[in-house]
Amino acid sequence: MSDAGPAIILVRPQLGENVGMAARAMANFGLTDLRLVAPRDGWGEGSAVQAAAIDAAVGAHGIVRAAPVFPDVASAAADRRKLFATTARERDQAKPVLTPETFAAEAKARLSADQPVGILFGAERTGLTNEEIGLADAIVTFPVNPAFPSLNLAQSVSLVCYEWFKAAAGGSPPFTLQHVTPPATHGQLTSFFEHLEAELEQGDYFIPDGKRAVMTRNLRNIFRRIELTEADVQTLRGVVVALARGRRRRKGPSA
Amino acid sequence: MSDAGPAIILVRPQLGENVGMAARAMANFGLTDLRLVAPRDGWGEGSAVQAAAIDAAVGAHGIVRAAPVFPDVASAAADRRKLFATTARERDQAKPVLTPETFAAEAKARLSADQPVGILFGAERTGLTNEEIGLADAIVTFPVNPAFPSLNLAQSVSLVCYEWFKAAAGGSPPFTLQHVTPPATHGQLTSFFEHLEAELEQGDYFIPDGKRAVMTRNLRNIFRRIELTEADVQTLRGVVVALARGRRRRKGPSA
Repeated sequence: MSDAGPAIILVRPQLGENVGMAARAMANFGLTDLRLVAPRDGWGEGSAVQAAAIDAAVGAHGIVRAAPVFPDVASAAADRRKLFATTARERDQAKPVLTPETFAAEAKARLSADQPVGILFGAERTGLTNEEIGLADAIVTFPVNPAFPSLNLAQSVSLVCYEWFKAAAGGSPPFTLQHVTPPATHGQLTSFFEHLEAELEQGDYFIPDGKRAVMTRNLRNIFRRIELTEADVQTLRGVVVALARGRRRRKGPSA
Repeated sequence: MSDAGPAIILVRPQLGENVGMAARAMANFGLTDLRLVAPRDGWGEGSAVQAAAIDAAVGAHGIVRAAPVFPDVASAAADRRKLFATTARERDQAKPVLTPETFAAEAKARLSADQPVGILFGAERTGLTNEEIGLADAIVTFPVNPAFPSLNLAQSVSLVCYEWFKAAAGGSPPFTLQHVTPPATHGQLTSFFEHLEAELEQGDYFIPDGKRAVMTRNLRNIFRRIELTEADVQTLRGVVVALARGRRRRKGPSA
């Protein structure tokens, strides 16, 4: 899948840390095609800005090292069939406006049809120029609090990559609830309930007797809500036994 | 809405930068209730770690300054009715597993019922302890590339806040495609097409004549796909006029 994802194109990025954190987020969400357009403070093997990027990328330093550098957006996007531009503020350009989520669906459809896709992220603070946005087929913007719309560059990349991965991989978590033992059978539950209720009977719980039926139902419903496993039922049986044993001991010989 | 959102509880955070970037992401997505549990390198007015957090928070420094500090998770979550724990790896605990998206839906439902919600984020690298996860009602994990699952702390917070805002605010972008002028009427389009085709006629475009109908339809369909505005039609009319004028000039007096 990594080869088939959108190219992440950072335009005039200023801080190596942001390039590295963007690369790390790309790796988190299965993307590898990072491209740089005219990094403000230079680039290249051994440069301070690339070193900072590699440091911030943690395990994704390979993506940083492999990132090609282009002089401008047109050359960085030359092999793309659809180009998207992220922006936080409205521009006076009549282009479709997508969210990261609708971008991801569109990108998935394009890539499924073998149409390479790229997405532009502008420099920290200044963003993309109107000329750069003019090169794109559509705009991607973020649903944000209008009182505080300024997203960190790496976090913008992260949100787009996250939505891409959700669309591409189906959005399921890497693991789900796994019971160590299977849910208890209804027979095991009934047996536990009867044990519990017999001990409660000894403790004069079901008083007045007229309320026995509703009290029993309420109590059983509490435990039914938990979806107890076999191991859980064993645990709770032990609890009931111990509580009853403690009571008998306190009562002493007279019990 | 900000008062009604989930509390973001950072447990033993190490780097002030991450606390600050988390606060900035909270502000981006309309949240304000940040809580800290035992920051590794201390906290408080004037501390180096708080200063770094305020710096990284940019405009959201108010959230950083207002964040209360607790000695442990139990005290930080004491007023919450539902508590969620983020983790990147599977734990041996039989709890429901949510994604940020399903967490957001659940949190919205809880908060709509006036049930305060909190979500725990563990320390960089180490995450939450099993005891801390044991305090939660459910686990939240991220759909990530299994080969590179380690998310930056602030980016984890950002993704959760983003999904919260999408669920709470409906996920619509802050602006949409706005045509500066309205879409052209079909009459304006027809008039433009006829003008274009008359000039093309002069340039012997419709040859052979038998293909005129299909050539006309194809050409009109290209322009229909664009959803031209009134201003666009004016622009294109000017283009056709200029192209025709240039041709006549080149032909000179003999034309």
